[in-house]
Amino acid sequence: MLVGNRGEIAVRIVRTCRDLGIESVVAHSTADRGSLAVELADRAVHIGPAPARRSYTNIPALLYACAKTGADAVHPGCGFLSEDPLFAAACGEVGITFVGPSPKHIALMGNKVDARAAMRAGGVPVLPASDGPVDGAYEARQAAGDIGYPLIVKAVAGGGGRGMRVVHRPEDLVPAYEDTRATARTLFQDDRVYLERYVPRGRHIEVQVLADSFGNVIDLGERDCTVQRRHQKLVEESPAPSLGDDLRRRLRRVAVAGAESIGYVSAGTFEFIVTDDGEPYFIEMNTRLQVEHPITEERTGLDLVEWMIRIARGEALPFGPGDVEPSGHAVEVRINAEDAGRDWAGSTGRVRGLRLPAGPGIRVDSHLYDGYEVPPFYDSLLAKIIATGPTREVALRRMDRALREFRCDGVVTNAAFHRTLLRDPGFASGDYRLGIAESLCSPQP
Amino acid sequence: MLVGNRGEIAVRIVRTCRDLGIESVVAHSTADRGSLAVELADRAVHIGPAPARRSYTNIPALLYACAKTGADAVHPGCGFLSEDPLFAAACGEVGITFVGPSPKHIALMGNKVDARAAMRAGGVPVLPASDGPVDGAYEARQAAGDIGYPLIVKAVAGGGGRGMRVVHRPEDLVPAYEDTRATARTLFQDDRVYLERYVPRGRHIEVQVLADSFGNVIDLGERDCTVQRRHQKLVEESPAPSLGDDLRRRLRRVAVAGAESIGYVSAGTFEFIVTDDGEPYFIEMNTRLQVEHPITEERTGLDLVEWMIRIARGEALPFGPGDVEPSGHAVEVRINAEDAGRDWAGSTGRVRGLRLPAGPGIRVDSHLYDGYEVPPFYDSLLAKIIATGPTREVALRRMDRALREFRCDGVVTNAAFHRTLLRDPGFASGDYRLGIAESLCSPQP
Repeated sequence: MLVGNRGEIAVRIVRTCRDLGIESVVAHSTADRGSLAVELADRAVHIGPAPARRSYTNIPALLYACAKTGADAVHPGCGFLSEDPLFAAACGEVGITFVGPSPKHIALMGNKVDARAAMRAGGVPVLPASDGPVDGAYEARQAAGDIGYPLIVKAVAGGGGRGMRVVHRPEDLVPAYEDTRATARTLFQDDRVYLERYVPRGRHIEVQVLADSFGNVIDLGERDCTVQRRHQKLVEESPAPSLGDDLRRRLRRVAVAGAESIGYVSAGTFEFIVTDDGEPYFIEMNTRLQVEHPITEERTGLDLVEWMIRIARGEALPFGPGDVEPSGHAVEVRINAEDAGRDWAGSTGRVRGLRLPAGPGIRVDSHLYDGYEVPPFYDSLLAKIIATGPTREVALRRMDRALREFRCDGVVTNAAFHRTLLRDPGFASGDYRLGIAESLCSPQP
Repeated sequence: MLVGNRGEIAVRIVRTCRDLGIESVVAHSTADRGSLAVELADRAVHIGPAPARRSYTNIPALLYACAKTGADAVHPGCGFLSEDPLFAAACGEVGITFVGPSPKHIALMGNKVDARAAMRAGGVPVLPASDGPVDGAYEARQAAGDIGYPLIVKAVAGGGGRGMRVVHRPEDLVPAYEDTRATARTLFQDDRVYLERYVPRGRHIEVQVLADSFGNVIDLGERDCTVQRRHQKLVEESPAPSLGDDLRRRLRRVAVAGAESIGYVSAGTFEFIVTDDGEPYFIEMNTRLQVEHPITEERTGLDLVEWMIRIARGEALPFGPGDVEPSGHAVEVRINAEDAGRDWAGSTGRVRGLRLPAGPGIRVDSHLYDGYEVPPFYDSLLAKIIATGPTREVALRRMDRALREFRCDGVVTNAAFHRTLLRDPGFASGDYRLGIAESLCSPQP
């Protein structure tokens, strides 16, 4: 198995390969040659220098690494090539098993306009939006008039919180439209954008599904990812604390129906925005492993990486609908190398005095070690701390304990933000909305 | 809460105090002033130098530390004063809550002859043995004639694998008798010994119970602790792999009946030897937290330290018999600072390049940190690695992965023994007996 990723997710995949007796080969950049994933894997192969486009997103380099090491499968992790249909297709063409969905499904869900249409056809509720991409300022104004404000301008090729702008007033529409097009052109080489109703104080709820190639689809419960800053998730928990059981069941049913309607295969996540009056709307589907997958693992006892691999091998899910019912409560915080004092800019440096939390109810997925040099080239995720308990209260108390134990000198992290969040009455109540992280982040004292 | 212990168990107790919002004060010796428990606790108090009798088992020093810091409760951990009825009684006399059973129950179970008698009266099967302590070589020979060989000479005040000698032939009886008396005199200041039938190739199975002061007793399943070297447990797993469900249920029922028959309160463990023909016999009861308690926590989702504290506070168990049914499989290995090349003598040194395992299904309870100086004064336990999974196979594969990740330079550990054990077909089959560890330990290549 070639691990086509870096950081904690590469370590995560190496661990499951080890558990399954699968030889792992970590593909790494020059900057990552001393990484923990490289150290823990059976083998490692160099694929090029930073930045990512010269290594982690360089399709020929990854295929060449497979050929060189004899790897007959690739797990793409999260980010990088994990949602690139060209990579999945290229693997297929040279007989390498891509551990993920088919190129067709990646492409379908990668195009946010097509994804909306497919979901609507499958009976999944979607937000009012423009009828496909909007071409020019005139069309944008027309569509905005139908949708109403606030609305969000989104790149058709976007996703994962990138390539979107919220517009509150008609006079801001055209500049935002032009800006998003320019951003999308740079990020995705595709400047098509569309407009969608914006739900300012909603909750971000997603449902994890697992589907095999025999038409079996199960859901593994939902995750609440409402704590975000600039559309980037910071904290995730499951179950979603302020979701009634009726709505929870409905979301889970809708996600399974959505996956069935398109014949999806592999692990996937349906993301919804839930309004204050309890209406859920599909936002996007992620056709890959999510950073926040461990909270689902802790509640179900399943290893999602293992099931992605088994499904890619052609195995059938041995459980039917209702066989896997998540229990207990799990919460994850993302420890990022970012500096609140410098507007959350990425931080680098050499890790010293590292103390990762441990003990009852605590799991840590991380690639940190003492002496590790955090490189400036990649995302800022350093560690995921996952706390589990029979109830939300117990899980949050354990998380508080874990954050007090966590120490990582030499690099500035957002650990203090998480401690602030845990003490916030709004978060503690469980009844929180999008915007909670921003309201706690600024102003800095 | 004063934590009257050191090492990983002190860290363990501090963590639960943190979770419960209880201020923790770690009582520490001079040698342990830089310990992780001291660092993680709210406060620390010095109680004297090494050896333990001048600090950790010095009752006045601990009571004085309570008075000085305002602690109104003590958790004694495992070992040291945790099974000293005088300490429990002294705490009671000065109004300090001893987190554990009553002095009466500690004393009853501390006297192995009285414990046998009480259990027999409570309907718990016991091994053939001498009728109380044997006084002199003549009485020893008489009793041995009734019991038969092999037999074991045990100190009345012994327990936890200390103060016992196995005798295979009549001619070895008297020397073993005299030796055990001398050892018992030194270790326990009580040279009374008794004789008991020895089951050479049995299995060591124990049952965890939890009892409140309102007469509610529940059992939390069994643990298999058959992997021992010189009567010291090295690996524990739950459920016991080669125990039929009938025998499992019977042991659990018997343990609850045993606890009820004496009106026991707190966490406690009933230890049994199970013969090859499936007959269980009571060996001893441990009236304290066990080193191996985490595997029960992982299977039940309960925090045993928390429940010891709640019960000591006078709370009632909110669950009745059958409400807590353990699930999945958990295994623990004890990483000890001991050197296989020097007949498993204790090892000391400064920890460098520490890498504690992590990731899905792995919990580590440890007081290690990079730069920690392992002192020569105490037991050799450095870390407990706990692997959990839906099945034994998954848990053992994860343990194998964790042992490969574990690194601790500067100190010699028994990690290699654990890797050998995991590869042993006898252990892998689950159908193993006492003696398995010795057979793998020697000869060293």
